[in-house]
Order: sequence, then structure tokens, then C-alpha cells
Amino acid sequence: MYFGTAWYPEHWPETRWPEDVRMMREAGMNVCRIAEFAWSSLEPLEGEYEFDWLERAIALLADNGIAVVLGTPTAAPPAWLTHHHPDTLAIEPDGRPAQHGNRCHYSPTSPTYHKYVRRIVEHMARRFGQDPRVIGWQIDNEYNRIDYSENTHRQFQHYLKEQYGSIEALNAHWHTAYWSQTYTDFDEIPLPIGPHNPGLMLAFRRFITRVWKEFQQLQIASIRMYSRPEQWITHNFMGWFDGFDHYVLCEDLDLASWDWYVGTGHHDYTRTGAAHDLTRGFKRRNFWVMETQPGSVNWAPVNNVLYRGEARCMAWHAVAHGADALLYWQWRSAPGGQEQLHGSLIGADGRPRPFYQEACQIGAELARAAGVLRDTTPRNEVAFLNSYDARWALDAQRHHRDFDPVAHLLHYYRPFASRNIGVDIVHAEADLSGYRLVVAPALFVLSEATVAQLTRFVTEQKGTLVLTVRTGQKDVHNALFPVLQPGPLREIAGAEVEEFFALDEPVPVYGEWEASLEGQGRIWAERLRPLSERTQVIARFGLANGWLDNGPAITRHPVGTDGGQVVLVGTWLSEALQDALTRWLVQAAGVTPEPIEAPPGVEVLRRYTSDGCAVTFVINHNRQEASVVLPGTGQDVLTGETCAGTVILPGYGVRVLV
Amino acid sequence: MYFGTAWYPEHWPETRWPEDVRMMREAGMNVCRIAEFAWSSLEPLEGEYEFDWLERAIALLADNGIAVVLGTPTAAPPAWLTHHHPDTLAIEPDGRPAQHGNRCHYSPTSPTYHKYVRRIVEHMARRFGQDPRVIGWQIDNEYNRIDYSENTHRQFQHYLKEQYGSIEALNAHWHTAYWSQTYTDFDEIPLPIGPHNPGLMLAFRRFITRVWKEFQQLQIASIRMYSRPEQWITHNFMGWFDGFDHYVLCEDLDLASWDWYVGTGHHDYTRTGAAHDLTRGFKRRNFWVMETQPGSVNWAPVNNVLYRGEARCMAWHAVAHGADALLYWQWRSAPGGQEQLHGSLIGADGRPRPFYQEACQIGAELARAAGVLRDTTPRNEVAFLNSYDARWALDAQRHHRDFDPVAHLLHYYRPFASRNIGVDIVHAEADLSGYRLVVAPALFVLSEATVAQLTRFVTEQKGTLVLTVRTGQKDVHNALFPVLQPGPLREIAGAEVEEFFALDEPVPVYGEWEASLEGQGRIWAERLRPLSERTQVIARFGLANGWLDNGPAITRHPVGTDGGQVVLVGTWLSEALQDALTRWLVQAAGVTPEPIEAPPGVEVLRRYTSDGCAVTFVINHNRQEASVVLPGTGQDVLTGETCAGTVILPGYGVRVLV
Amino acid sequence: MYFGTAWYPEHWPETRWPEDVRMMREAGMNVCRIAEFAWSSLEPLEGEYEFDWLERAIALLADNGIAVVLGTPTAAPPAWLTHHHPDTLAIEPDGRPAQHGNRCHYSPTSPTYHKYVRRIVEHMARRFGQDPRVIGWQIDNEYNRIDYSENTHRQFQHYLKEQYGSIEALNAHWHTAYWSQTYTDFDEIPLPIGPHNPGLMLAFRRFITRVWKEFQQLQIASIRMYSRPEQWITHNFMGWFDGFDHYVLCEDLDLASWDWYVGTGHHDYTRTGAAHDLTRGFKRRNFWVMETQPGSVNWAPVNNVLYRGEARCMAWHAVAHGADALLYWQWRSAPGGQEQLHGSLIGADGRPRPFYQEACQIGAELARAAGVLRDTTPRNEVAFLNSYDARWALDAQRHHRDFDPVAHLLHYYRPFASRNIGVDIVHAEADLSGYRLVVAPALFVLSEATVAQLTRFVTEQKGTLVLTVRTGQKDVHNALFPVLQPGPLREIAGAEVEEFFALDEPVPVYGEWEASLEGQGRIWAERLRPLSERTQVIARFGLANGWLDNGPAITRHPVGTDGGQVVLVGTWLSEALQDALTRWLVQAAGVTPEPIEAPPGVEVLRRYTSDGCAVTFVINHNRQEASVVLPGTGQDVLTGETCAGTVILPGYGVRVLV
Repeated sequence: MYFGTAWYPEHWPETRWPEDVRMMREAGMNVCRIAEFAWSSLEPLEGEYEFDWLERAIALLADNGIAVVLGTPTAAPPAWLTHHHPDTLAIEPDGRPAQHGNRCHYSPTSPTYHKYVRRIVEHMARRFGQDPRVIGWQIDNEYNRIDYSENTHRQFQHYLKEQYGSIEALNAHWHTAYWSQTYTDFDEIPLPIGPHNPGLMLAFRRFITRVWKEFQQLQIASIRMYSRPEQWITHNFMGWFDGFDHYVLCEDLDLASWDWYVGTGHHDYTRTGAAHDLTRGFKRRNFWVMETQPGSVNWAPVNNVLYRGEARCMAWHAVAHGADALLYWQWRSAPGGQEQLHGSLIGADGRPRPFYQEACQIGAELARAAGVLRDTTPRNEVAFLNSYDARWALDAQRHHRDFDPVAHLLHYYRPFASRNIGVDIVHAEADLSGYRLVVAPALFVLSEATVAQLTRFVTEQKGTLVLTVRTGQKDVHNALFPVLQPGPLREIAGAEVEEFFALDEPVPVYGEWEASLEGQGRIWAERLRPLSERTQVIARFGLANGWLDNGPAITRHPVGTDGGQVVLVGTWLSEALQDALTRWLVQAAGVTPEPIEAPPGVEVLRRYTSDGCAVTFVINHNRQEASVVLPGTGQDVLTGETCAGTVILPGYGVRVLV
Repeated sequence: MYFGTAWYPEHWPETRWPEDVRMMREAGMNVCRIAEFAWSSLEPLEGEYEFDWLERAIALLADNGIAVVLGTPTAAPPAWLTHHHPDTLAIEPDGRPAQHGNRCHYSPTSPTYHKYVRRIVEHMARRFGQDPRVIGWQIDNEYNRIDYSENTHRQFQHYLKEQYGSIEALNAHWHTAYWSQTYTDFDEIPLPIGPHNPGLMLAFRRFITRVWKEFQQLQIASIRMYSRPEQWITHNFMGWFDGFDHYVLCEDLDLASWDWYVGTGHHDYTRTGAAHDLTRGFKRRNFWVMETQPGSVNWAPVNNVLYRGEARCMAWHAVAHGADALLYWQWRSAPGGQEQLHGSLIGADGRPRPFYQEACQIGAELARAAGVLRDTTPRNEVAFLNSYDARWALDAQRHHRDFDPVAHLLHYYRPFASRNIGVDIVHAEADLSGYRLVVAPALFVLSEATVAQLTRFVTEQKGTLVLTVRTGQKDVHNALFPVLQPGPLREIAGAEVEEFFALDEPVPVYGEWEASLEGQGRIWAERLRPLSERTQVIARFGLANGWLDNGPAITRHPVGTDGGQVVLVGTWLSEALQDALTRWLVQAAGVTPEPIEAPPGVEVLRRYTSDGCAVTFVINHNRQEASVVLPGTGQDVLTGETCAGTVILPGYGVRVLV
Repeated sequence: MYFGTAWYPEHWPETRWPEDVRMMREAGMNVCRIAEFAWSSLEPLEGEYEFDWLERAIALLADNGIAVVLGTPTAAPPAWLTHHHPDTLAIEPDGRPAQHGNRCHYSPTSPTYHKYVRRIVEHMARRFGQDPRVIGWQIDNEYNRIDYSENTHRQFQHYLKEQYGSIEALNAHWHTAYWSQTYTDFDEIPLPIGPHNPGLMLAFRRFITRVWKEFQQLQIASIRMYSRPEQWITHNFMGWFDGFDHYVLCEDLDLASWDWYVGTGHHDYTRTGAAHDLTRGFKRRNFWVMETQPGSVNWAPVNNVLYRGEARCMAWHAVAHGADALLYWQWRSAPGGQEQLHGSLIGADGRPRPFYQEACQIGAELARAAGVLRDTTPRNEVAFLNSYDARWALDAQRHHRDFDPVAHLLHYYRPFASRNIGVDIVHAEADLSGYRLVVAPALFVLSEATVAQLTRFVTEQKGTLVLTVRTGQKDVHNALFPVLQPGPLREIAGAEVEEFFALDEPVPVYGEWEASLEGQGRIWAERLRPLSERTQVIARFGLANGWLDNGPAITRHPVGTDGGQVVLVGTWLSEALQDALTRWLVQAAGVTPEPIEAPPGVEVLRRYTSDGCAVTFVINHNRQEASVVLPGTGQDVLTGETCAGTVILPGYGVRVLV
């Protein structure tokens, strides 16, 4: 279990370093990320490398028992580079080059930039690749730029040629006869800025993924040329950010990590749990929280602080969801630069800020729990599917301004989180062995691999599959399937979508899966049509727009004679109805319920060793006291107390039970 | 009476065509618009024309009794053209060229583009100009682009030289001494981007009208070179869109048509009736609805569907307002392209979508009524005036953010529509013979021709003229008249505007035209000053901002000894007061009231043969049942029933009585 | 006491002039500003000067007893200039040149523009510099443009070199090690567009100040080469506009003036009084209102008119705050141009508009009071500090979207205005002799000079100093001080800021300076920590976010044994609490209370002769009658009446008592 911070020794006189590192150690820190924006300190002039200061910083940390994660500094190229090689600057959508002085001003497709990146990374790897004090590498920082340079344009056209083979094939898949879009040559194809042909837009998103993958591979190759195998390589992602396909980038990484910020307001564990689960799903194993906020950020509309105690809950919540490390960003704010007012542990005066005490508590507690947490990981019976293709395509064609694909997924996630049913979030093409229930929210674009996995899940694995609105309307070229939704999943769904509707007003929905239930559909509705006699209609619309009236809203289709079942949900249900549906789904799919009774706001999750021993986390996310009822007894790792029966947790109280 | 759809045979394999056309025929369709985005299918490479497929599509339609409207495909130039001739691309306000892949990316002022347009249109006309299966042509599609290219800039300067003769004259009319704007040469004059000199801005709008007129003339000339005279030529306009002066463009067209979309929400006949009346006024005869939505669109914030039955009401509402054709856009959504999710009659699976049934009903009913509707047209005693000059000038100087000139017109229109008084909307310079009441909303810019027509109307024709706020403040160069409002209409108005006020809060208004009435003025107020002893003050402001207090708000001036009268309304009245004023105006002007008593939401309108026989439309726009009282008996053309006395209409019920 | 208007004789035929000037004289006007946009009339072609018309206009005015302020016309270069010298055009942030036809389209850094500016100004000065009819000059008009041209870029780099000496020093002060921003040469430094390094952003604001200072100096030098010393030179500023450091520009001016507009809504004297006080503080003496609105403007969302009588109150309010002149903009609207619909005194028809009567009343009253007002000026015991450095830095790092630095200052100002305690607003580095109470709102950036003045104020002058939130966090390079807030003021404050918080929800605050008081802190809170035993905690936070709970919210520190005191306010108090704090501060600082009791909305202020005789202004800003109680008797200069005891003022009533 790692606990630490991001530190920028290059911001401070070296005489100050020992004091900083001492305070890190006293906070229980055992890891530190450094150097990821230090290019101008590492190579102040072209070809003049200054790595000694970095070596000394690493040594000082190691002397204090703090391992190092080394960032490659490529997110912030130095001024001498961008000034003398303007072709390394990214181009904005309006055609102007990005300016030096912020981050991510580089063009990830620039051959010149690649040359300089390779050189700095190779130099770093040669120096620190065999260093036992460096346990891992972070490539760049929060990839996010879309560069509209001529390099990008030509490479995109080249990518399309590679993907489609011929311009005729591209025209066919994109249906370019529409609006005379037909291309006679790949060099006629534009970079999409604003709305464009759906095929072009989706291909461009995949191309951007390719750009980052190649940029990352270039760096990985440079590191691996010199590094010992124990040094892992990661990148710090940004939760639900959809700038590229994270699964594709993670193929080449050893570890997934993410940067977790709340911004304005406060932490809602029924939402952010999903971001942890998502990140855990990138490599299907535990992950790191590479950055998180020590109190407040500086970039939100209102940069309020977390409540006292909230960060501790967040730390344990992350661990419960599979985090093996938690690093605060940042240790101490630089006296200058864009993030002067960001939260930090050490103040402008060099002394601890109030938040430091909470960090010390977290550090001490993590240390206490480290033993029992070793080699444990969450293990769940429920999976949610995530597809970047589907999200990109949906986001470009919301059809209802409120149809946010992530909000749609979270609408399904929240009731699971509320009843403490752990969830994995995995790639829509992932192997689904071992799950009892799979929720596939709005798989607008469906690949053949996804169809095969889902079919196998409900036939061979006899699982329960939940399909939602906007599923199976598009092929992987973002073209409409020539059949109704859910397209190639119609057969296993045992139903199809007669018509879809964006809703300007809610419609009544009557559920019949348990007792009679009444609620509403909002934002979206699809009138379903059973395709099989075995298909049950388990909810209907009431009188609405004339088209939906009394039509099927949710169907259940038992697959084969003793196969699984597919539930097709034809609307965005109101909260209570969604909650009731979830309760029934959990039961119908045979998912094991959480044995500890917990009131609202109290999260209960487990991590398991490979031989099935569990560590149970009970986290009171309320500011008020709450009590849970344990079915047996347990020992609280944090306090050593033995707990049984009704256990009272103070506001923001945490129990880690074995 | 034509009923049909837009069809894109180029999107589909030819083997599919017969099935589509069969379903069109079964829906009662007898017209189809094709080819208007098919340039890349008609001329896949420069100079290589492929018209055979189009001929086969036309033939298939004709075999099924469906006439063809042929679109010129110039709204979507092919990629080979824009790629090899980048000077054909429009330039955005920020100086960047438009990209291929959407529509309207061409520069309408490009000589190169003109050359290619002429060629494709001439080729089409040569092939289909004598074809009896083709009944008409649509030029381009929904003109809307403003191109900021160098060609446009030079042509604008040339246009100004032609209009003003000398730079001195231009300087004088635009009062360029203000802010040192004085030009010493036409080549110094910029294209206005953002706010500019009012004279420049108005001239630019007129120039854009000229650009489209010439672009359209070029195509008309190309068609007329080869076509038989029976083939009419139209363009599909967009209702209240103000990108150019529609009256000027209609001078060269045989027929006016428009594209009628609701977007988010539902149809309000007291608003959209005005758009039909506007389009009917372009040529002062019946018009076509060239496109309308089959259920929903795909470009609105929420693309909800029309209620079941609503489209049928809309169809009859259009016919009642003078539509002689109604075409749904589109028949079937293309598998690719930006409008995949737009409403259509045929689904992705090639089978009818639910809306198709409603279309079939409409088709059958229109066929039943076609006989009685032949050669009928609306005939009204009330005219509203519309001036693009005034709207452009007002929109650029709203002075109150809510002073939308179209909203202002509709504020006057709604009470007429509510009481089923039919209205014509005509050009502000139109001949007004035959009208009893003319409403001239906010004629901010006044031409001499308009002044002459209005003067003739109230003197020779003894009509009742209603002038509203913001009338007669500007000459045709958008310069202030050197007299108070209503400028050259002061004499017939018998009053002038002492001062105008944008209102940040409502002001009390007391009406005295009938009994005492109390209400409010909003958005705008003008304190009137009678100029004649014969001028009656028929409404006054209450205590307000100190300047308006107790001042005249509405005046009535009887013109001459037995002439007509002018009512000058000095504020934007609250709804109830506006309604009361309308009731009185109708009476005072001697307008014939609608004899059928109808409750709110029930529209009653008539079309007449040239010898005065009427077809009466009774349309219940409510979702609930409503009843009307007929003064005599009538036969319902749709059902054959005879109706008399109280007639009950179900929700969305329609009667077409003769 | 000057009263007048802006007049544009170049807009009108010369035959009209006598009528206009006659009406000015009849309105009591004795000053007129002319020529400030007349370049194309003064130099219609390059090098061809036409000054005779201007001479005749000046003569006509003088013949009618109206003095002239002459504007240099450089805010609106003529078309021949910008067309033939495109390098004189400003460059927009997106890289495109500004267009001719609006104002301020010139580049203030263009050497070519400087050449033409020097020529026209020298020609004007040579002609009118000795003219006794011209009493003063206005340079340009409302400086506001930021030009992103290559000239600006190079000059900025040159400026930085001059300021920092070496690139190493710049890197050190800006802490460019952060994000690899380190520069190796001044020519690498970009113009900041959007967020950037705080050091760079602040330096750029100071550089823009330098640009305007040099542009202004160039013109002043041109004038002074020929002008008699009695002609003063001013510029018309725009109140709280922060485009440059007004104190720096005022160093070279003889007189401060500003343009006072209300826009939408109505005048609030507790806000606009601060803008007058600000402008008075630029030169620390009386000022001019160079432009104000005659009824309404034309550029606001809703251009409503001032209530009848409101403008008169505004005029006396300005005088009470130290205005020695009031000029309406404009006399008569030009028939063309962007401001056709702006308020004016004379209508399109050449006759007075209703507002003219109110202007006549004001003119007559000012004339009556001129004698007693001669050589009088406000004299106050309270000063507010204003720092452009602090405002720029805060605005770029609001940290809470609602932390507007001007709103923060006005939050402190309002309760003083409400209780009729006059206030000076002076430069944060100004000498504070003579004040009893100094309020220093949010001095985010602190210079050494400010620290020295404030220290002297509380030690030597024994004054009461109020420091507020966000004080003393940054040095003049916009870098964090290496100590906690209030940085170098910690010692005199006797307290420091343990932690600062942007608030997403209000927090309870309990005041203890008088009786117990309860209220809230909003937007911002700082937990204070006393540094001395003598520091009193006079307010505490209640239970809030866990960090603030029960912590010190306001402290009072008596400086030295018989020195002054420093009150450090750690939150943005709710209105009532702010009001209570102000009441106590006034008392604690020994500020003389206003002896006249006045109800809400009635302003009472004084101007004094150098020997202490006072003129008292009693202004009822309410639309309803209000009464005040005079402690003695006074004579009303406007009516000649003697007033004593309870005096009733009608709505918008004014008394000027001696």
C-alpha cells in the first residue's frame, strides 16, 4: 500500500529539500512522484543534460524510505525547443499554434517532437532505468490535446487508407453518397472540426487514440531499452475523460492510474466509485490514484475545500475499490505558476497547512492496514460495460440535450452502489466469465466482438444481461444497422425497438416485475416489440404521446431452455423505479446480497486475497453518526477493536474489518 | 393537391427501389423530390456525368403515378471540385475556408463555382427539361451561407459603386463623418463582421440578396435554356429566416415553397399560420410545403416527436393556409451521414415506422379532398406588411434585447388567428387593393413606395391602417429621418412620437376605444403627440417613468372627410389588451367576422374558388374533444357526412366542409 | 462650475450651428467638447488639413459664452490612413486585423501610427494652442484596446528586458521552473492570450499601461510644444475599467475626468459614489464628468430611460463628490452611425427632446450654485485603497467565481455611503496623512511602498487600518510571499491567515466587537491566528466545514502602546454584519459622524473651501418624499429659502445649503 505525494524539487533551493522530505516521512509517506514537468530543468539547453539534482533528490527520498515514480517530462517541452522548432507546437482548431507557457502545447504527431522526446526519455532511462529506488515510470501527464496540424492531417489520411484499403470502401462504410460527400482520394478528407459525417468523426476519435498509443509506445520503447523489468510503466488518466480509447492505451501499460479531483462541491461515493471501478477495469487489476486533492483545487468555479474528514473517507473508499496507492497533488505550491492557489500539504511559509494533519492520519492508518491488504483485490459478480466507440457516437448525436452517456451509465450504477453491490466496469469486448449480471448501458455502436461476448454470456454462462435504450443502432463505422435496435442483439433480447423517442416531457411507466409499480420515463423512451412468445413484457408505458401509449417498456427474455436471460429496458426510469428494478435484477440474477445492513451513505465493500479471505471496509460518508449491523464479529485493523452486532460510526467514520 | 416525400435513390441499391416506390404509392403519394444533394452521384468525376440512374428512378416513380420535382444539387459540391478548386469554398467570418463534408460550403460569389454550377444544371436541364414526368425544379437548397471571401468583398464594393455612383454620395447617405468613417474610395469599404455603421450593414444585407438572386438566375437561365414552360421553378425557403429579401428572390421564381419544421416541442397554429401566410405572400398565390417533419427532427435540443394525430392537423392547417403540396422529409434515413436520426417514414430495417400509418391517412384524405380543393385559395380582408429592410435594421438595433421584430409581428397576428380571421402577409410595398384592414408592424425603415401605398390605402381605398411602435424612423439608407416618427407617415397618422422608450419595467396603459380597459405596455413605449384636432387619443399611459405619465399611448386619426383611418399604437400591449384592441379593430375596419363559433384551439379557415365557392376547414388543434356551432349545414368531404348545428370534433379532429 | 455637452459640428450643415448653440446657451451651458472623432473632417486626405470649420465652430461657441474642450481625434483614424498603412491597425487576439468602421481599430504601438498621430495633434496644437477660447484638451477617447500585433510583441519583450535586466532574473521572479516555462531568451516570451503564468500576466498588464502612457505622452508633448500653460490636458476614463493603471496615466495629466453611464436600470448612489471618489483620487482633486447620459444609452441590453428627475439627482450627486463639470453625451444624435439611438438633448427633428427641459433646470441650478461652490472640494477622514496590481492578479485568480475585486470594495463602501460618511479612494501607495480610518480591500499584491505607507499610518499617524481577505499573498511579480497572509503586514496586523477557503456555502459568523452579533460569511473565509497577546479576536466562525469551526474570523490589533490599530477581517460578511462592523469602525477610529439625520436613500455630503466653510448637499435619491433633520439652520442656494429643523424633500428633491 503506497501513500505519497507529487513533489517538485526543481522549484526549491536544495537546502530546503531535507525539511520537506522529513515532513513527508512523518506523514507516513512511502512514495513520491517527481520530474514530470522538469524538462527545462533536466535539459536547460538543447543537448545539455543536468540529471545530478534529480539523482540527489531520489537519493534523499530513498534515504527516508520513500520510493520514486519518475515522470517523463514530455507534457511540457522547454521554450528553447518550441521556439527553435515551431513545428513541435500543436495547432488549435482555428489554425493558430499553441503558445508556450501552459502545458500540452506540443503536437503529438510532430516527427521533430518525437525526436526530442525520444532523446530526453532515453537519457532518463539510461540514468535511472536500473535504479532500484525508482519503482516505476509515468509517461507524460494527462494526455488530452487534439492537434490540428498538417502532420496530423496527413497522418489521419494515411490511417484511413490503412484502415479502409480503398477510397471506395471508405465511401461505402461512411455512406458518403449522402450530401455529395463522396471522396475520390484520401487526400481530400478533412480533419473534422465541429459536426461532420458520423463515420468520419468516429474514425477521427480512433485515430487520435492511435496517435497517443504511438506517442506512448515511443516512450515505452525508450524506457524499456534500459530499464530493469521490475520498473512498471503507467500513465495518469482522468476518469471518464473520453479523448481516446483507454483500453487501447492500457494494452501497453503495466499499471493503470488516475487523477481524482472533486472540484466544486463534495464527494459522492455513488458516482466516484464508478470512476475507480472504471480505472480498475483498464487492466482488470488494482490501480493507483496518482493524484488527488489535498483539500481544494484551483481550477473549479468555486474551489471550496473538502470537509474535515472527507478526504480520509475518500482515501478508504479508493482503497476499497482497489486502489493500491494514493498520492496527493501537490506537496507544496510553487511560488509562481498557474497553480499557486491549488491545495497542498505545505504552505507558502514552508510549514504544514491544516490539511497535513488529516494526511498524517491517513498515512498512519494505511500503514496499519498495509499488511492485511497485501495481495487483496475487489471481486464482483456484476459487470458494467464501457465502450468508447459508443460514447463518442452518442455524444455526437445526443438527440436529447440531456442524454449524456456517462450520466446514463451512472444512473444504472448508483442503485448498485447504494445497496453495496460491488461492480466491475470493463471493456464492452471483455471476457465476462464469472459474472452473474452484466449491465450494458447504451451500446449505441456494437462490434462483432461485443455481440459474441454478450451472446456467450447469456447462452454458455447463463448470465443475466441488461440492455438499455440506444443499444445496437450502429455498426463500428457509425452507420445504422439495417435492422431495428438492438441490431445484432435482437435475437438474444427476444425483442426489438419499434420506435425511439426523445422525450420533451416525462411519460408514465408501470412496472410489473414484482408488485405493481408506478413511475416515469424521462429523456428517452423506446417502444419495444416482443419477437418471441417467451418474451415477457415486465413494464409498460401509460398514456403519453400517442405512439408509446400502453406499449411495452421493459421486456425479459429467457434465453434457450436453461440459458440466462436478457432484460431490455426501453426508457430512462425515474429514480425510485430504477431502484426497484435494480433490487429485482440483483435477485433475479442470483447476485449475493451484502450481508451487512447499512443505512444510506454508508458504504460497505470488500477486498479478497486469492484464497478468499476478505477485508471489509465500512465507510460512513455522512457527516452524521450512523450505525451498521454486523452479521458476525470482526476486528478493526485501524483500532484493534473487536466489533460485533450494532457498530456505531461517527460522522466520516471508517472501519476496516478482518 | 400534391402529397409526397423527399427520396434519395442514390443512397440505396437499385434493387430496393421498387419496394420503396410501392410503399410511397400505398401512402397516397403523387409527388417526389429527388436529386438535390446528388452531385457526386451525377458527376462522380469532373465532366463524367451519370444520369442514367436518375432517369431510371424517375421512370419508376412515374410508373407508380408519382410526379418528380428535380433539385439542382448545388448546395453540396463534390469533393473533387472543392479540393481542386479551393476558391469555390466559402470563407468563414474568421477567415478560414469552410470544410468539405457538410452542406453549403461553397462560395456563391466564386466565378469558378458559377462555371461548374452552370455546367451541371445545364446538363440536367438538357436531359430532363422536356421530360413530362418532371413537373418542376427546385434550385439549390435552403440558401443561407454568408461567404466572406475576397470575391465577395470585391463584388460588394462594386455593388456599392453601382448603387451610390460616387463615394461622396455613399458618405453622405451613411453619414460617415461620424467616427471618421469617411471613405475616400470604394476599395476601402470592409465587409461588416459584427456591429458596424447601420448604412453599411443594411447595404450588405441587400448585397447578399443580390448575390443569391444572381446565383439563382444563373441556374434558372441554365434550366430555361432547355426546359418546357410547364416545368415550374421554385426554391425551398425557411419561413421567417431573414438571410436575404425573399420578395426579390421570388421575382424570378414560379412558385414559392418552404420547409416547415417544429424542432423541440409542439405545433402552435397561431404562430405557424403566419409562416404559411408569409410564404403565400411571396408570390401572392398558393405555395408548397416542400419539406416537413415525419414525427421528429434531429437537430433540435430535444428532438421529441409530434403527438399522434398532430401531423394530420398540421397538414390540414397548411392546406387551409394555401398549401397545394406537402412533402415529408425524408422517406428513409440514410445509413450514414449527419441526419441518421432524423424522422422518416421508413425505418432502418426498410419497413414502415409508426408514423407511416399517419402519413397514409393524410394521403388518403388529401386525395379525397383534392377535387373540391382544385383552384381554390384563401381570400382575406386583412393584410400584414413585412419588410426585410425594417427587420434587418431593427434586429441590428433592438435597443431592448426582447425586441424581436418577428415576435412583434406575431404579437399582432395571434389574436387574429385566435378569432379565425384570415390574414395575408405581403411585402410592405405591395398593392393593398381589396383589404379593409392593414397592420404594419414596426416599419422601422420606410421606403417611398411603402409610404405611397399606405397613403393610397387610407385615402383612396378608405382602409383602416394600424401603425405600431418603431415605425418610420429610418430612410432606406438606414439613416434617421429628420422628422419624428412615424416620419413620412406623420401626416396620415395625425400624430407623432414625442419620445420613444425601451422599458425595463411594464407601464400601465388605459384603453378607451370601447369601455375602459386596463393593461400594460411592455418592452417598448412611445409617447404620442396628436398633430391634428381630429386625432383621437384612445389609450393613455398611467404613472410610469415620469416621461410617459398620462401621455397618449394610442391614437386614431380619421383621414380626410370620408377616408379611412390610421391607428397608431405606441406600446407593446399586454395580451388581454392586445386582444381587446384586435376585436375593436376588426369591427372598426368592417372586417367580416367568422360565422362559425369555435372554442380556443379550434381553427376555422376557408379556401375559395374564383367564383366564390368556399371550402371550410375546421381543425381541432386540441388533444381534447371540442365542439363548434355551424350556422348552416355542410358536407364533410373526408367522411361524406352532413353536418349541421353543433358539431363535435375529437382531439385533433378535422372537418373539411363544402 | 462647468455645464455642457459633446457636440459634433462636422455632422451638420453649418447653417444649422447657430440654432444648436443658441439652445445650448439657453440650457445654461458654458462648455462644449468637440472634435474628438473628427480626424476625417480635419484631414480628409493625407496632409490636407481643414481646420477652418473647427475655428468657426469654436468662435460661434465663444460668442455664446461657451468654452471649448478640444479632443484629439486619434481614437478614430481615417480610412485613407488605415487603408494605405495597414500596420496601423490593431491585431485581434485571433490574429486578424481590426476593421475600419468602428472605433479604436488602431495599434497604439505602431510607429507608423505614432507618426500620423504626432502630425495631426501638432497641427491642432499649432492652430489652437494659444486660443483663449480653448480651455483644455482631451487626449484620444476612452483608451481600451489591447493590440496583439508583432510591434506589441517585440515591445513587450523589450519592456521585460528593461524591467528584469536578465532572463535569469525574470525566470527567478516568475518561477518558470514550474511547467518547464523557463526562457532562455526574451524573444521566446509570448503575448499572453488566455490564462498564463501569473508573473507574465501581471507584467503584460503593466506593459499595456506603459503603452498607453507613451501614446499619451506623445500627444501631450505635441500639444505642449505650442499650447499656453492655462490649457489643461485630460483623458476621459471609464470608472472601474481596469485596462491599465490609471494612476500611472494620470501622472502626466492635469485633470482627471470620466464618462459616467448607467446602462440598463437606474442609478444607485451607494455604488456610483465610489466611481466618483475613485476618479477624484486619480489626481487627488476635483474632477470632471466628461460624458453622462441624457436619459438613455444605446448599448445596454435594455436601454431604458432614467426616471424624470433622476438625472438632476445624479448631477448634484456628482458635484457633491467633487465634480466641477458635467457634460451630456451627446447634444444631438447623428443621422447615421452606430449611436443613432443613444440619448441626446436634441431630437432627429432638430427640436428639444423631453430631457432637454431637465437639462435646462440643472443648468440653471448649477449657475445659481456656482458662486458658493468656487474653490470647494470634498474633505474626508476615511480613505479606501485601490491597487490595479491587486485587482489584475485577483481577477485572474478569483478562486471563487463571485470574487470580483470591485464588488468586494463596494461591499465595504456601501455602508459608509449609507451613513453619509464621505470617503476618498486613493492609490494603495498614496500618502495617508490626515485620515483616521483606512480600508484596504483585498490587497492581494503588495508593494514595498504600500507596506511602508500602511505601517506609517498605523504607527506614526495612529490611524485605524482595516485589512480584508486575500491581502498580502503576492509580491509585485505576482509570486507567493514565503510567509502566510497578510505577508509583510503580519506584524502590524498582529495575526496571520492559517488557511484560506473559497466557500461553496455560507458559514456562521459571530461578532463580539459590540454586543453579540450573528451573521454569515460568504464567498470567502480565512481562519486567522493571532500572533500577539495583544491581538483581540472580535469575531469567530461557527460550525462550518470542519476547518473553520470556532476559529477567529476578525481580529483587532492595537499597534504599539499608543499607536493606531489594525482590524483584519477574515471573511466576506453578510450585509447586516458588514453594516454593524462599519458602525463600530467609524466609532473606534474616531471618524466624525454626519450631524444631519437622514433616512435611507437620502445622501448628505459636503464640499469645503480651503478655510473650512462648507456647502452641504442633501439629495433625496428616492422617488418618494423624505425628510431630514438639520442640527442648525442653512440657506438653500437653489431657492434662497432658509431651512431649519425638519426639512421635507420631495421625491428626487435636492437642497444645497450654506
